[in-house]
Amino acid sequence: MTALPPSVEWADGVVRIIDQRLLPTTLEVRDLASVEDVIDAIYTLAVRGANVIGSTGALGYALGLRLDLDPDETAQRIIAARPTAVNLRVAVELVHAAHKRGEDALSAAIALLDADAEQCRLIGEFGRKQLSEATTILTHCNTGRLATTGWGTALGVIYAKQAAGEPVSVLATETRPLRQGARLTTWELAASGVDVQLIADSAAAAALGSGRVDAVIVGADRIAANGDTVNKIGTRALAVAAHYEGVPFYVAATLNAIDAATSTGVDIEIEERNGDELRGDSEIAASIDVWNPAFDVTPAELVTGIITEAGVLLPPFGDTIRKALAL
Amino acid sequence: MTALPPSVEWADGVVRIIDQRLLPTTLEVRDLASVEDVIDAIYTLAVRGANVIGSTGALGYALGLRLDLDPDETAQRIIAARPTAVNLRVAVELVHAAHKRGEDALSAAIALLDADAEQCRLIGEFGRKQLSEATTILTHCNTGRLATTGWGTALGVIYAKQAAGEPVSVLATETRPLRQGARLTTWELAASGVDVQLIADSAAAAALGSGRVDAVIVGADRIAANGDTVNKIGTRALAVAAHYEGVPFYVAATLNAIDAATSTGVDIEIEERNGDELRGDSEIAASIDVWNPAFDVTPAELVTGIITEAGVLLPPFGDTIRKALAL
Repeated sequence: MTALPPSVEWADGVVRIIDQRLLPTTLEVRDLASVEDVIDAIYTLAVRGANVIGSTGALGYALGLRLDLDPDETAQRIIAARPTAVNLRVAVELVHAAHKRGEDALSAAIALLDADAEQCRLIGEFGRKQLSEATTILTHCNTGRLATTGWGTALGVIYAKQAAGEPVSVLATETRPLRQGARLTTWELAASGVDVQLIADSAAAAALGSGRVDAVIVGADRIAANGDTVNKIGTRALAVAAHYEGVPFYVAATLNAIDAATSTGVDIEIEERNGDELRGDSEIAASIDVWNPAFDVTPAELVTGIITEAGVLLPPFGDTIRKALAL
Repeated sequence: MTALPPSVEWADGVVRIIDQRLLPTTLEVRDLASVEDVIDAIYTLAVRGANVIGSTGALGYALGLRLDLDPDETAQRIIAARPTAVNLRVAVELVHAAHKRGEDALSAAIALLDADAEQCRLIGEFGRKQLSEATTILTHCNTGRLATTGWGTALGVIYAKQAAGEPVSVLATETRPLRQGARLTTWELAASGVDVQLIADSAAAAALGSGRVDAVIVGADRIAANGDTVNKIGTRALAVAAHYEGVPFYVAATLNAIDAATSTGVDIEIEERNGDELRGDSEIAASIDVWNPAFDVTPAELVTGIITEAGVLLPPFGDTIRKALAL
């Protein structure tokens, strides 16, 4: 394990984060001392990754109470910063409910961060056992130490393999437009001593077709009751390519990413972001129209298994998800 | 038609090109006055696109003869600048053979440019008739006026639709790592008055899954005798996604992109380029390993049809290609 600072923590009465926009060039921690700062950090992706967004939102809510803000309004404002991220809503509503029951919101938020780390540990172990034969893993975006308060979800499986002394190497996609794979995943894996190779998103199909990838593992921002998975744009392309090439495709996520109230992925609204993320530093004229969805939906039929802290869920996901959530 | 200068031409005793590396910010023509300049322009992608590479190589060979260089050595050096591009080899060998027969190499090269423009016109017309029902086309990389000495191959179909007064709009992929789609395709389509929307390469699967794309049309750098198609990295991912979503997938290319001596795509060596193209302006540490193939191979079974100047070739491609080449 490398000595990274926590992706997010409560320290000195503020929410302290790694500002991930500056990585990998600069490793800088930043103090969020107001709810506006917290919302801004979530919206501008200074913090990103489903679980860190949830943790930051929960701590931000506790910060709001300390600043004597209205609890209901604070919860709603934070949740609205990234509407597709179900973890954010779940985490904020959880500490909000704790507060309304008369419990300490800050303690509830910190307990959430601890639980996240423990859930990641379990995901890593379950994934490691499920994928005991896989040594070369292709992954997308960033789902590791920078995306959670533990060692991550999809990357947790990688770190669990490393911790167990098993051979493992990673193909990391660049993840356009914001390049989380290139900037964050290659950085944190290299810092942790894991072999990693960077590829363009568009090169993944060729890599999968070459026979050198044993499995694809990605995270999830939201999973519908039938197993349809919302994750970073490009995930659907990887799932389709893995399916065509006969490579197993796993989703690794904590159970709180499952939105049992949403029956299929078709029902999920996808956040569309500013086209300038793709245009670049004014290289492409502002008059050029851009379609820039932040996420896409991977049909459940393309998913081999969902690795959670409660074990690996296999198809039919409608049944296994219901059982895992004890619904 | 917009008043673009030619992508490449013979003018004032030199090879004159648009330096495509500077687009879309700056439209600059550049004079290549030596064979070294020509090789450098091809290798550094100042000229790119299968047909323009071939045309530039042919004119460069004629330039070399004017400068009293050894014909055999000049031909070999130019061909070696981009080994995967079969058009380059074919074009240079064609003018080299004309010279050895005692013909004027420059006239042969200029005839080649004229033939390219005429072939593009025919591809556009055949494609337009084949895809008469398609109004929204997804394309990859740049295959238009900047990639040929005519209106292009895949984009030729778009321009033919526009010229015929038919409705047409384009989804253009960014095309990492060198962004030819973002920089060149959106620029030349917008300059020509065609509706175009830019998307990340990784968003193509979501676009195809949304039902709003009627067909995918891409170019080809090389086509094997069985129809396996080598084209810009990312093409295979588009073909796999189009197949999964039930969207027709067409290749548009001049017959000289067909390499009948190569039986399948598996036999084709793929050029791997410098990882810095993906790392970016030193943002990603040089110690991070990169796999950066310039092309990939799309299996023939994923190709709906190959649009050529001799008509639209349909499966089984082994037979239809043999007939088109009169083999």
